[in-house]
Amino acid sequence: MSATVADTDRAGESVAAERSPCCGLYHRAIELVGKRWTGAILLVLMDGPLHFSGVRQLVPELSDRLLSERLKELEAQGIVGRRVLDGSPVRVEYSLTAKGRALEPALHALKAWAHEYAPR
Amino acid sequence: MSATVADTDRAGESVAAERSPCCGLYHRAIELVGKRWTGAILLVLMDGPLHFSGVRQLVPELSDRLLSERLKELEAQGIVGRRVLDGSPVRVEYSLTAKGRALEPALHALKAWAHEYAPR
Repeated sequence: MSATVADTDRAGESVAAERSPCCGLYHRAIELVGKRWTGAILLVLMDGPLHFSGVRQLVPELSDRLLSERLKELEAQGIVGRRVLDGSPVRVEYSLTAKGRALEPALHALKAWAHEYAPR
Repeated sequence: MSATVADTDRAGESVAAERSPCCGLYHRAIELVGKRWTGAILLVLMDGPLHFSGVRQLVPELSDRLLSERLKELEAQGIVGRRVLDGSPVRVEYSLTAKGRALEPALHALKAWAHEYAPR
């Protein structure tokens, strides 16, 4: 198969120069949700609030230390909120904020893709 | 504000036990697309095939070494295909496979989210 000038131009520098560069906001967002364990934590919180131990149960293999770190990061981003429940012992409930729930279409589309095209 | 038993149950172990654990296929998928630079490379390829240098132009700050590594990983996953174009010098064009293009709804939903709720 021989390449024509048109083939080359389809992908070459001249074409690249006219196309949109990758956007920084998207770039930071995908690396935020794709960070180790973060996507898994977000998915289980999509179904409703959970205590720390509830997240641990639904995301096997995740350590307490990493879960704690990730929840703090997600709180700092305004994606997860925490609520301290009175009682003895005091318990903490974690839930998605409106910003966190707004990730649902993206995460569910990715889940559907994963089921259709299982990564090797 | 005092917590009731119902509040606690909403998020407690008994509830967690009835909910779906995070799914391994989704978990692998989100960490695949969220790996450093991978999401950015996928986004620029969504607009059509590119040469290596074209991707470099559209994803500033990405090094040749990392781009090469990521393209190999994406090829191994069947998400990106490469085509050698005849000519002098020989050029290589990278494009998304059907499996790669099927990521579009997820990545575009994430891009929309990123623009609505810019990460801090």
